[in-house]
Amino acid sequence: LRRKVTSDHLLLLVDLLGTFLFAVEGGMTAAHHHLDLLGVMVLAFVTALGGGIVRDLLLGQTPPASMRNWRYPLTAFGGGFAVICFYRYVAELPGLPLLTLDAAGLGLFAVAGSAKALEFRINPLIAVLLGGLTGVGGGTIRDLLLAQVPGILRSDIYAAAALLGAAVVVAGILSRRFKPAYWMFAGWLVCFLLRMISLHQHWNLPVVATR
Amino acid sequence: LRRKVTSDHLLLLVDLLGTFLFAVEGGMTAAHHHLDLLGVMVLAFVTALGGGIVRDLLLGQTPPASMRNWRYPLTAFGGGFAVICFYRYVAELPGLPLLTLDAAGLGLFAVAGSAKALEFRINPLIAVLLGGLTGVGGGTIRDLLLAQVPGILRSDIYAAAALLGAAVVVAGILSRRFKPAYWMFAGWLVCFLLRMISLHQHWNLPVVATR
Amino acid sequence: LRRKVTSDHLLLLVDLLGTFLFAVEGGMTAAHHHLDLLGVMVLAFVTALGGGIVRDLLLGQTPPASMRNWRYPLTAFGGGFAVICFYRYVAELPGLPLLTLDAAGLGLFAVAGSAKALEFRINPLIAVLLGGLTGVGGGTIRDLLLAQVPGILRSDIYAAAALLGAAVVVAGILSRRFKPAYWMFAGWLVCFLLRMISLHQHWNLPVVATR
Repeated sequence: LRRKVTSDHLLLLVDLLGTFLFAVEGGMTAAHHHLDLLGVMVLAFVTALGGGIVRDLLLGQTPPASMRNWRYPLTAFGGGFAVICFYRYVAELPGLPLLTLDAAGLGLFAVAGSAKALEFRINPLIAVLLGGLTGVGGGTIRDLLLAQVPGILRSDIYAAAALLGAAVVVAGILSRRFKPAYWMFAGWLVCFLLRMISLHQHWNLPVVATR
Repeated sequence: LRRKVTSDHLLLLVDLLGTFLFAVEGGMTAAHHHLDLLGVMVLAFVTALGGGIVRDLLLGQTPPASMRNWRYPLTAFGGGFAVICFYRYVAELPGLPLLTLDAAGLGLFAVAGSAKALEFRINPLIAVLLGGLTGVGGGTIRDLLLAQVPGILRSDIYAAAALLGAAVVVAGILSRRFKPAYWMFAGWLVCFLLRMISLHQHWNLPVVATR
Repeated sequence: LRRKVTSDHLLLLVDLLGTFLFAVEGGMTAAHHHLDLLGVMVLAFVTALGGGIVRDLLLGQTPPASMRNWRYPLTAFGGGFAVICFYRYVAELPGLPLLTLDAAGLGLFAVAGSAKALEFRINPLIAVLLGGLTGVGGGTIRDLLLAQVPGILRSDIYAAAALLGAAVVVAGILSRRFKPAYWMFAGWLVCFLLRMISLHQHWNLPVVATR
């Protein structure tokens, strides 16, 4: 029943790149919270693969892709290992490079997640939501494990960028114009740019008026 | 392997009504916590659909019903949108109407959840537990996202009402007397009344004696 | 597609024993936190069965084993009931017996979880991770419900012991030497001893250097 949307190689490459970026970010968060080596590996794994695992569970694809292809866990652990080796150097970087990597990873996951959801012939609204979930799910689980309110719920244009990028992919691929790969690049660019500009301009979503 | 327990229309109607009530409640909670517009939508969605999604994952029905029928997400987002439009008015209401709506939604979900579990020929004890889970699951995920101990774990007759309502539905339908719809109404009434009376009388479950 | 790894009876026995031990521990935690009777039952259930349920969801075995065999929920509720009846006596025990029971339960679950994962012909790295998840998953969900950072993320040799025990089982069974039951006993012993010795010696995993 599945239909091919784009080449499996492209999806895998996009996914593994996002996995590595998010694993580094999850591992850095663990180190900031003074967790031990295993905690670094757990948060690297969960931040990198959590969103995709929840998406696959919801789509009924079990075991999830990241558990059937050893490249995923190995890439995630590689990101955690990189943090353990190079933590001192990365921690001294200013915030911008990390935020840029995170925005790039967010776009990669949103794009890969919505393209994969379309393969399951799911309704377009749900495909967009699953793209957003793939982007923000891992970070949300990481925040929950640290007993913090997930960043996506606090006011910031983060999930909104992922959802918009996913919407571009879904609308584009369903239009059947141009190759899916172009739409995936466009969706990634929209998500990445919106995220970076909103960081730079301190854009926030409005808050419901409270007395 | 599934067997029909009651009309699909009745189950859908009960489910969508509960979805709207819980979405409003989740959105109100988000507004109280000063979350942004996206946060209101996320909590409306999660509170309204989280319990049913977890139930469907456990039953192995993937994608979950709320992801295969666009009426569910649209109803949930409608509840969130209603909060964004009418927050000022709803927030000025005394607590009772909201608690009444919540008790009504709890009963609807407990009843729909246990009836659906029975369709999967699952053992009656598990069907009752899944009915309770459908009722309290969404609110529990909402509380977790807000980094709070879920309300159901603090002493209050909430989950107990959902479980009792679900038990009435399961016992009634398995007795094969009367139509399932009657038992669903009876289960809803038991859950709703027990919840409302316990609120009014400040009933609590006993606590294990601690030194 | 499944292959038998060891006798179903042995797996069931190991699982139920671990279930009871973890249910008692979850119920004790609930009582320590002054939760009500239902809270004791919920935490007993979640601590005992949560890890196995998540493992089964990831393996695509739905409904999870603990929902298809009434022995699991009944054993978990039995553990919760034991806490309600004997809380005063258990709470007066010194910490060591409880920590010993917990280490024994951890080993049982890690061993049963990795052996079950192997039945699904999953890659060995993932089988080890699923064994560890079965061991620490229930306690992690319990901690999340109490809005606490899960114990496994704080520095302690806990998850590491579960992973090592699971690795012994996976490597041993895949070597096809001796009976699987021997490897399961060896894996349990490794996990149990490592955990007990690390408690006694206050061993911790190293923390990534932070400025």
